[in-house]
Amino acid sequence: MRAYRMTGWGEPSRATTVPVPAPGPGEVLVRVAGCGLCRSDLTMRRMPQVVGEKLGWRMPFTLGHETAGRVAALGAGVEGLTLGEAVALVSPASCGTCRFCLRGQDSMCPHGLTGRGYGRDGGLADYVLVDGPRAVLPLGDLDPREAGPLTDAGATAYHAVRRALPRITAGGTVVVIGVGGLGAFAVQFLRVLSGARVTAVDPVAVRRDYARSLGADPLSDISGFAGAADVVLDFVGTDETIAAGIAAVRPGGAFGLIGSAGGRLTAPWFGTLPRDGEVFTFQGSSIADAQEVIALAGAGLIRNEVTTFGFDSAGDAYAQLAAGTLTGRAVIVLE
Amino acid sequence: MRAYRMTGWGEPSRATTVPVPAPGPGEVLVRVAGCGLCRSDLTMRRMPQVVGEKLGWRMPFTLGHETAGRVAALGAGVEGLTLGEAVALVSPASCGTCRFCLRGQDSMCPHGLTGRGYGRDGGLADYVLVDGPRAVLPLGDLDPREAGPLTDAGATAYHAVRRALPRITAGGTVVVIGVGGLGAFAVQFLRVLSGARVTAVDPVAVRRDYARSLGADPLSDISGFAGAADVVLDFVGTDETIAAGIAAVRPGGAFGLIGSAGGRLTAPWFGTLPRDGEVFTFQGSSIADAQEVIALAGAGLIRNEVTTFGFDSAGDAYAQLAAGTLTGRAVIVLE
Amino acid sequence: MRAYRMTGWGEPSRATTVPVPAPGPGEVLVRVAGCGLCRSDLTMRRMPQVVGEKLGWRMPFTLGHETAGRVAALGAGVEGLTLGEAVALVSPASCGTCRFCLRGQDSMCPHGLTGRGYGRDGGLADYVLVDGPRAVLPLGDLDPREAGPLTDAGATAYHAVRRALPRITAGGTVVVIGVGGLGAFAVQFLRVLSGARVTAVDPVAVRRDYARSLGADPLSDISGFAGAADVVLDFVGTDETIAAGIAAVRPGGAFGLIGSAGGRLTAPWFGTLPRDGEVFTFQGSSIADAQEVIALAGAGLIRNEVTTFGFDSAGDAYAQLAAGTLTGRAVIVLE
Amino acid sequence: MRAYRMTGWGEPSRATTVPVPAPGPGEVLVRVAGCGLCRSDLTMRRMPQVVGEKLGWRMPFTLGHETAGRVAALGAGVEGLTLGEAVALVSPASCGTCRFCLRGQDSMCPHGLTGRGYGRDGGLADYVLVDGPRAVLPLGDLDPREAGPLTDAGATAYHAVRRALPRITAGGTVVVIGVGGLGAFAVQFLRVLSGARVTAVDPVAVRRDYARSLGADPLSDISGFAGAADVVLDFVGTDETIAAGIAAVRPGGAFGLIGSAGGRLTAPWFGTLPRDGEVFTFQGSSIADAQEVIALAGAGLIRNEVTTFGFDSAGDAYAQLAAGTLTGRAVIVLE
Repeated sequence: MRAYRMTGWGEPSRATTVPVPAPGPGEVLVRVAGCGLCRSDLTMRRMPQVVGEKLGWRMPFTLGHETAGRVAALGAGVEGLTLGEAVALVSPASCGTCRFCLRGQDSMCPHGLTGRGYGRDGGLADYVLVDGPRAVLPLGDLDPREAGPLTDAGATAYHAVRRALPRITAGGTVVVIGVGGLGAFAVQFLRVLSGARVTAVDPVAVRRDYARSLGADPLSDISGFAGAADVVLDFVGTDETIAAGIAAVRPGGAFGLIGSAGGRLTAPWFGTLPRDGEVFTFQGSSIADAQEVIALAGAGLIRNEVTTFGFDSAGDAYAQLAAGTLTGRAVIVLE
Repeated sequence: MRAYRMTGWGEPSRATTVPVPAPGPGEVLVRVAGCGLCRSDLTMRRMPQVVGEKLGWRMPFTLGHETAGRVAALGAGVEGLTLGEAVALVSPASCGTCRFCLRGQDSMCPHGLTGRGYGRDGGLADYVLVDGPRAVLPLGDLDPREAGPLTDAGATAYHAVRRALPRITAGGTVVVIGVGGLGAFAVQFLRVLSGARVTAVDPVAVRRDYARSLGADPLSDISGFAGAADVVLDFVGTDETIAAGIAAVRPGGAFGLIGSAGGRLTAPWFGTLPRDGEVFTFQGSSIADAQEVIALAGAGLIRNEVTTFGFDSAGDAYAQLAAGTLTGRAVIVLE
Repeated sequence: MRAYRMTGWGEPSRATTVPVPAPGPGEVLVRVAGCGLCRSDLTMRRMPQVVGEKLGWRMPFTLGHETAGRVAALGAGVEGLTLGEAVALVSPASCGTCRFCLRGQDSMCPHGLTGRGYGRDGGLADYVLVDGPRAVLPLGDLDPREAGPLTDAGATAYHAVRRALPRITAGGTVVVIGVGGLGAFAVQFLRVLSGARVTAVDPVAVRRDYARSLGADPLSDISGFAGAADVVLDFVGTDETIAAGIAAVRPGGAFGLIGSAGGRLTAPWFGTLPRDGEVFTFQGSSIADAQEVIALAGAGLIRNEVTTFGFDSAGDAYAQLAAGTLTGRAVIVLE
Repeated sequence: MRAYRMTGWGEPSRATTVPVPAPGPGEVLVRVAGCGLCRSDLTMRRMPQVVGEKLGWRMPFTLGHETAGRVAALGAGVEGLTLGEAVALVSPASCGTCRFCLRGQDSMCPHGLTGRGYGRDGGLADYVLVDGPRAVLPLGDLDPREAGPLTDAGATAYHAVRRALPRITAGGTVVVIGVGGLGAFAVQFLRVLSGARVTAVDPVAVRRDYARSLGADPLSDISGFAGAADVVLDFVGTDETIAAGIAAVRPGGAFGLIGSAGGRLTAPWFGTLPRDGEVFTFQGSSIADAQEVIALAGAGLIRNEVTTFGFDSAGDAYAQLAAGTLTGRAVIVLE
């Protein structure tokens, strides 16, 4: 079958051919319909071997961690799934038995640093093998060619919004910094799940226009919010956005950092962090998050904007992703 | 000034004339613009003296606990309000110093069984006196002639929805039983604050139509929901609605009883109440609830449908209210 | 091996001999050290076949759902457990993949109506087979001969206390009705996890003495608490305890029903249930609950009082349990 | 009457004589029994006039914000207090009507930057005037000569612990950095309100001994906790304690900064802050916090260690406080 793969540490990824895997006991084989591309795919080419091996990554592996398709075969003992059913896959590995998984906090599972598409075979192939039904989420009537990003870009943004909801008051203000793939989902979740006014801050005009079309008030600069926002969600994460975002939060509000730009706060924490508020950061999302995002999309409450490419154009799609010329999530259609 | 008053225990209420009160230190005088009528006004005529006095009610008093108007005079020491400003009033008395008030739970304050319009002078008059700025909520651009019901019918429904929100999952189902004044607000709050599908159950076709216009799925009968709803909010409260509502809740869900019809559950609680779920009931709402409802209305996220009458038609409006021929809240316009 | 079993619908349970099971892929074999007896074991003899089969029970099966022992063999692919390690077992079946399990609410899993010891082979035998490591909880230095009740009587009481904690104020009052096996655990958890005064209500003097030794104020009658308790946990559940317990709860407080005596409330709900409070009921507990109870016992913060019997005395132990002459939980020691 | 006062910007505080104030309508006059000294009293001497006036401070004023005594006189309209009753006073001004106060979050009230003893007359005098009953907390049988610190040192530590409780698991670990006045209270609250093991980190041996006597495991260095603590409460707040404390928190845990030493974190936030955890900081405490601390002390669940001085020794007491030679809170006894 076709597969787009990392072939060795420090080597570029490329299209190749590998055998179709067969599902063992408890496993599920999925025929991929579409798989989203992520900026993090590009950085894997530069992952040092020593770091990758410490995370538990095994080389080579197929890329793609925003996968949806149809159930193609069930291993012995698997129940509750139907052949041909449209499903999306949760990518991070999680054990299901640790203290975190047992409390529904599987995004904190120590096994989550590997996943389908990073360190193990992912969905940028005709078929992908899933280790169990826990990671297989029925899509109902949603189109599996385009649903993949719901489980990653969508679910990560949803996780942030869910964390922030208890601190949002009806009629309050929420600021979203950075209206890329994740931020655009966040704006939508906030519009659906809160009675707050949503302000979207982005220096790029086309993104501000997109934010406006999703119901946000667009703004190019956050500086006017001193101490007035219930919540700031920062999908960029530079020194500048962190400092401005923290300053915008009201007492008792929240600042959530999702952007991985590596910023820090140079001011003393006491007296600068939001008084009696909350600062949080995280990576990824839980399986429950992905379930709920799929439910919202299924109910027509959110849009999932994608640009589709054929498998043979995957290299081109990655190039456009790297160049930053895409609007909406890039998805490789395999079906 | 004009006032519509309870004149004695067991006597009918009627229009009369009383002096305009003067605000003492810390008090606020409000020129009433509009005041909503409530079904509970009708039952006060039948309140036994012994019960009323036990609640702390003083006879006679002016009716009206859904009041909005404009600040007319400020007692000594009152800050933060402007003469002429449009405001709505929270009606229940609450002390501001008990264990409940200190925790933002003023609707549990033991003093809340009296209020402006029940046991003390309310807003069905040209002016009403307020004991302090805590109960005076700025309306911004909202019309004070029609805003009164936001603080009672609106805030009570909001209190119920706010209690239920943590148990509502995105894509889940919430059932509202009874789409009268409160239920219609509840449908709207659920649409604004959750990603759930809202089903509105009412035997009356015109109310089901109204529910549909607010975004709910109308239904005449709740029986199909066995164990599938995240939350049921019962604005009726008979034996029948309680039994059917409880049966509709999923494990871990909530049943909220707001309707005062006096129903009970005849089945054993263990094994019948929602497994690991929550049953709650309450009366009224907190000042914070009313603030947030006003904010949602100010942002245009909810509608407040009213039928207006002049002061001279108050008796007629009560007669229509008693007859059940009104749709939307009845409001007496005094300005 | 020895096993104490239900042999057919409506038939008495009895000691017998069955083969030692062998662990398949993903399964764990445990050598039982001790197994607690539960009053519910006695009622299984009267379970109608039609009900049992509807629950998914398969006859015959070995009794015992409070099991602890040592890891004896690991099926293929099982990691994280060591041969000989002391462990306790969570008994209810739960799927690990449903919406409830994925949120850490495995006690709501629809598969939980069967479990090891009810409908499937339990721990009243020399060995017991566990379907996966999710249900196997390391005991550290705790004695596996006596630890079984922590996972059922202990964890169920813990689940109730954990539900109630947010409504308990420091210096407030919590009432525990019924100081049997579960109630005695609840008293202890409340003492460790809250700053509330704990009152234990029981008509039996010896149980009141036991409650006093655990730090509670014993009382034979609940009637004095009208509206003053933060929380009432009812481990009995008759009409009388429910009515008295509900009346004891303050506004905003909680009433938790754990006792399965089948009581109901005959008063109208509106105006009788605790104002803006919470009523809840449930069965069993989550795996996380059992983990935390084991941690508390391991830290020496709670006592687990048991009366031990040999396997040959199991029939006698059940007779004493039925007669109500035991204090502390009855445990059959097999090691 | 005697009073220990700030007499001008930048001037030292000193003992003097002022008239006894008379309570106006709604006010309460309290005969002071004892008043605690705080390190922040010392820094007020250096407060620049421009900063103080911006905060709303009026010079001169009497020091002392840890006050308890007996009700001496009631202004017109004050109910619920009895002459001679032992009470403690909450010091921060809070308006009772803003969005924060209405939600029980009075420690976020914008008026809280002044208070009795900082910018307004405090309790280091024979009498102190209180603007309303909201700030007057009955002490029951507690000794008003020593209870003052419960409302500030005690309540601030309680506020931190209450914020952290939802993230503490039974059997988990909590680290308290700095076992001075506040940290010693925190250790006690954690012991009473959680089932966690409490580790107290302090470089000073005598403080570690004190922590041990309160039930904590003392440690001179935090470095061993990498990612294992449910919660770290930092009562110091330097660069070093923040970095070490953050590193000690497990995924999903919390880091609370209470110490005002002005530290910051130099590492990038993403990847360094506790994954999906919570960082918070605050100043002071709510009235409800103080109520609950008094309730815990009244129930004998916590100790309040003080060193007492006479009014004529106040200067000496401040000198000892500045020198750091005191153990326990310094209290000036006036009764």
